[in-house]
Amino acid sequence: MKRFGKIDRRTLEEIVFRRLGYRRRDVLISPKFGEDAALVRSRSRRIVAAMDPITGSEARIGWLAVHVNANDVAAMGAEPKWFSVAILLPEDGLNVLEHIMEEIHEACVKLKISLITGHTEVTPGISKPIIVGHMLGELVSRRPLSSSGARPGDLLVMSKTAGIEGTAILASDFEEELRRRGVSSEVLERAKRFYERISILDEALRLARRNLPTAMHDPTEGGVLGGAYELAEASGCSFIIYEERIPVAEETKLICEALGCDPLKLISSGVLLAAIPRQKARRHPNLLRNLAIIGEFRDRRSGNILMRSDGSEERIREEVLDELWRLIAEHAK
Amino acid sequence: MKRFGKIDRRTLEEIVFRRLGYRRRDVLISPKFGEDAALVRSRSRRIVAAMDPITGSEARIGWLAVHVNANDVAAMGAEPKWFSVAILLPEDGLNVLEHIMEEIHEACVKLKISLITGHTEVTPGISKPIIVGHMLGELVSRRPLSSSGARPGDLLVMSKTAGIEGTAILASDFEEELRRRGVSSEVLERAKRFYERISILDEALRLARRNLPTAMHDPTEGGVLGGAYELAEASGCSFIIYEERIPVAEETKLICEALGCDPLKLISSGVLLAAIPRQKARRHPNLLRNLAIIGEFRDRRSGNILMRSDGSEERIREEVLDELWRLIAEHAK
Repeated sequence: MKRFGKIDRRTLEEIVFRRLGYRRRDVLISPKFGEDAALVRSRSRRIVAAMDPITGSEARIGWLAVHVNANDVAAMGAEPKWFSVAILLPEDGLNVLEHIMEEIHEACVKLKISLITGHTEVTPGISKPIIVGHMLGELVSRRPLSSSGARPGDLLVMSKTAGIEGTAILASDFEEELRRRGVSSEVLERAKRFYERISILDEALRLARRNLPTAMHDPTEGGVLGGAYELAEASGCSFIIYEERIPVAEETKLICEALGCDPLKLISSGVLLAAIPRQKARRHPNLLRNLAIIGEFRDRRSGNILMRSDGSEERIREEVLDELWRLIAEHAK
Repeated sequence: MKRFGKIDRRTLEEIVFRRLGYRRRDVLISPKFGEDAALVRSRSRRIVAAMDPITGSEARIGWLAVHVNANDVAAMGAEPKWFSVAILLPEDGLNVLEHIMEEIHEACVKLKISLITGHTEVTPGISKPIIVGHMLGELVSRRPLSSSGARPGDLLVMSKTAGIEGTAILASDFEEELRRRGVSSEVLERAKRFYERISILDEALRLARRNLPTAMHDPTEGGVLGGAYELAEASGCSFIIYEERIPVAEETKLICEALGCDPLKLISSGVLLAAIPRQKARRHPNLLRNLAIIGEFRDRRSGNILMRSDGSEERIREEVLDELWRLIAEHAK
């Protein structure tokens, strides 16, 4: 019996190869036994790539692996098209493979992405499944929308609500503790469904196609505040953000209060942050529908400021430590 | 103090971003703090992608991560250009990051590959570093050289010697045991340097540019025999291979004898397997220099046959279990 290494052909063919997402016609060679690479045909020649692992969560990791990578590609103003995935399973982990693949398939179909290549194995020395995703896409905006294009005076806008991904992760991974601390089953169930809100493709590609933003970013670790810090740093600016303007879902508030954590610093895939010049914002008000203007970019010397709802001023001088990692570390003690 | 999650900005900037391999001019946006995606410009529009993790070895994992992925891309007849990497470190693993990055950088410079994006984090629940690499390249052959193009009558040729990668891994990871079993330090040191032979780019791209093979493959797990099986299966053929024609290095022989394993079933990155039509082989003898003709492809019904040097016949009816995984499993007991 084989204990470690690449999974066997039958499992590959029955579980993996039947779940390759959307069937794109630009995929010329796709996964098959004995085929270690994929071939795709590019349309625009301008290829965007992003790579992110899923390691901190236990729930919906297949779904997340597709979406966080699709989001990174979309935040640059590109349409995600071709996904690759490495799935590393612990010794007794083969039983979860089908579930993971089903999630990957479902997410890829929804976003019209093809799974083009990857690797699945049983890995010695890991205690939980690890998924590493890699997404390729093609630019839809005239210029790439990197994190570094924001200019002083640009508005800082966000979509949806703070801590979307973190809310769903906490509701799943800290479920028992949250119940003990009085969070109701209804709230937890609704919070778990926040995974459904994790794609930023709609809002990112809508803005990108109209070449509206000067910069976009998909805030993951460090939440909305960490994402704004990364945008400001990459652009050589600073920001001022008003806490009272940041939308926070009721479920997020309840869960964060119960665990004593800050929703603004909670991992936030699903939120799009964008820098938009004031004039353009005035000219295209309909394109900003469903987006909240939470602050603006300023000269670097002003320093990053979060104006708390209670009137106090918080200075953000370094990367923001994600509340999720803090909670995991505290609970590992 | 942060224990888990993305590594901090200073470490990223000082250790990772200074080691991005070869500076390709077609890389338009490359790694930088706060930038989650990369942008490259394609020339041919025919993009090849491959993804492989390094988890079974302890030595030279950065070097391997680049080469095994570059090999997969080259085996399809494409020139590897753009590398992405996810590095997952155990809790005390930050000290090895610089070494891993140095290896990645060195391998990328050697092959003229740019490191374009990735992710580095400290991951809870892993005991050794895990690296997942993803390589992008562009076709240089007229048609992609997948594993599935071999036809009955084609010659089966291989480059270098069987079990190259496995020889180096065993010499590193089983060093103590090999010494106890009488393998000399000189042999072990030479065997460890087999990592230097792990690239198939020279031979693969030479054949691909002349459109010589009908199929190519980079045998990893399962060794030369496993790779031949994968080629035959993907092509709907069978093979006959003559053990006496398979080159095996002296160091590989000594190490395999000491551990009681079969060099033909030992992980063999560094070897290129190719199917070449007889006529073309006759017309281009110089292109086959340094390649050994180890057998040929036959009709599927003939079944896969390994003619052992002692005259016995071994039938290969299923995927070949790699000797490395068997040895690791035995030693974990």
